[in-house]
Amino acid sequence: MMKDLHPSILNLGDMLRKRGMLLGTAESCTGGLIAAALTDVSGSSGWFAGGVVAYANEIKEQVLGVPHDTLVTHGAVSGETVEAMVRGATRVLGVDCAVAVSGIAGPSGGTPEKPVGTVWLAACAGEALAVRRFVFSGNRDAVRLQTVAAAVQELTTLIEAQ
Amino acid sequence: MMKDLHPSILNLGDMLRKRGMLLGTAESCTGGLIAAALTDVSGSSGWFAGGVVAYANEIKEQVLGVPHDTLVTHGAVSGETVEAMVRGATRVLGVDCAVAVSGIAGPSGGTPEKPVGTVWLAACAGEALAVRRFVFSGNRDAVRLQTVAAAVQELTTLIEAQ
Repeated sequence: MMKDLHPSILNLGDMLRKRGMLLGTAESCTGGLIAAALTDVSGSSGWFAGGVVAYANEIKEQVLGVPHDTLVTHGAVSGETVEAMVRGATRVLGVDCAVAVSGIAGPSGGTPEKPVGTVWLAACAGEALAVRRFVFSGNRDAVRLQTVAAAVQELTTLIEAQ
Repeated sequence: MMKDLHPSILNLGDMLRKRGMLLGTAESCTGGLIAAALTDVSGSSGWFAGGVVAYANEIKEQVLGVPHDTLVTHGAVSGETVEAMVRGATRVLGVDCAVAVSGIAGPSGGTPEKPVGTVWLAACAGEALAVRRFVFSGNRDAVRLQTVAAAVQELTTLIEAQ
């Protein structure tokens, strides 16, 4: 699965290993697919510690510590929520860097303001933080796979600068 | 991805929804692939809450509460560890039923006693608990995919009896 991402993931893993950094994930819309892609590569245990699949908002709150107010005020699919998720993942998993995603993979759940394909992504490494919004096209599979690729890309950019 | 599992997952989801039960996961060797497969199905948010990818032993201990002694005495790939993982997942995620897996996906990490393809799986629903050992053949991909299928099968058997 997702073999076309292997070169990018191997490159990301090499960078993490050289810096002695451990990576973690916090996933909503991808439901574990980012972690699954990272661990699809043999040797990933050297730089990937683990992740939280926070599909339900209760898990975002209770496991990752996303404030209830943040979810109510901004929604689960927002920059504020993914930033809280990535901070929570870093703390809970005890890792040096992390990525968090929350979005609407479809086919249902879209609104005029947040159409299907809307994905918020946050990545952090040390003091550095990047929060970005994407609007991907295609079906549920396509949205999820593009989110995985974006997570790897965003982490790579962030780790390169460390 | 893993479209051939969709009918089994839809069936499992229907059973969970009818019983008003929420499912969670705790994954080591599959690295999020079970959660990714479950959420590959649209509507899974009605019965799937989330999961923990406990790739590193530190996550098994610190997030899922697997006792350090269990890991030292029996190893990460053992019935004792997956039982502690599934109990921890149920508690931490606040779910009614859960599945946990830990195994050696390969290509490295195998021993004469625990060859590549060895996977321990625990599933629990209410008071019911099932712990099983598998030895799958094939490469890393094949071992991981067979583990996902076994998790869905084991959960289905357990939930049916509820």
